[in-house]
Amino acid sequence: MYKAIVTIKLKKGVLNPEGRTILRALNFLGYNEVKDAKTFKSIELLIEGDDEEKIKEKVDEMCRKLLANPVIHDYEIKLEKIE
Amino acid sequence: MYKAIVTIKLKKGVLNPEGRTILRALNFLGYNEVKDAKTFKSIELLIEGDDEEKIKEKVDEMCRKLLANPVIHDYEIKLEKIE
Amino acid sequence: MYKAIVTIKLKKGVLNPEGRTILRALNFLGYNEVKDAKTFKSIELLIEGDDEEKIKEKVDEMCRKLLANPVIHDYEIKLEKIE
Amino acid sequence: MYKAIVTIKLKKGVLNPEGRTILRALNFLGYNEVKDAKTFKSIELLIEGDDEEKIKEKVDEMCRKLLANPVIHDYEIKLEKIE
Repeated sequence: MYKAIVTIKLKKGVLNPEGRTILRALNFLGYNEVKDAKTFKSIELLIEGDDEEKIKEKVDEMCRKLLANPVIHDYEIKLEKIE
Repeated sequence: MYKAIVTIKLKKGVLNPEGRTILRALNFLGYNEVKDAKTFKSIELLIEGDDEEKIKEKVDEMCRKLLANPVIHDYEIKLEKIE
Repeated sequence: MYKAIVTIKLKKGVLNPEGRTILRALNFLGYNEVKDAKTFKSIELLIEGDDEEKIKEKVDEMCRKLLANPVIHDYEIKLEKIE
Repeated sequence: MYKAIVTIKLKKGVLNPEGRTILRALNFLGYNEVKDAKTFKSIELLIEGDDEEKIKEKVDEMCRKLLANPVIHDYEIKLEKIE
């Protein structure tokens, strides 16, 4: 069994209004040491199987087919073996 | 300067409709090896300062005041020194 | 054919950190006339069929089974006939 | 006092992975009458003031400065007078 963490971020240069909003709100509350804020989404999948290489390929395929928009998103996959 | 990653997850037992939807969609596409799916949100903050302990406290305060809903969310803070 | 708009809001009393963040950010930018902010999500479905009553029931079932978390969300369904 | 509802949708042609995921999940559950699904976000603002024209202009400015990403989002503003 594997746990896969898929992290989906906006590509560099794509504005992140939610991050910008958080930055302004923190500054408003007096946290002026905060200089930038970005948000991103993660998906944690529990996957049956033993072949790490093959699982990674499958998860990459899931990202392209369903989970991410390749025009605006970059994604990253981390696998962790669990018993 | 520090980079803080705040990870905000729904508490155990709080239903995550988005994760459930992703699980069903992946199964529909034939990925039957996927047994569970959960989503969570992260916020990456760039913070000026050198005192790691104090920065961690501040970020914890930001979570309680603004970024998380303590009734339904757990959060986790990771700091990384950057030059 | 029908278009269904499902609107999913946090129940009264459930804190909406994203709305709170937006309120603070707008005030920070000088929009002090903004007194409250809440966010919510909508899902627009295109549904084949002619029986409005039955479609509404089905969409209600989709909300309970998949789209909403009944513990923290209220939802509302609007149907519009399209050709 | 006015209530402003800002609706933020992905522009036509921008892939909406969340909507696609919902469509697949509903089909998986047997709701084959659902032919398309899109998601969008709304923000409900409570705004002090009486000049509807001016409030609309201000909210439009908030969208451009903070709430939306003009490259990927379209937005729509609806105002409703409340006492």
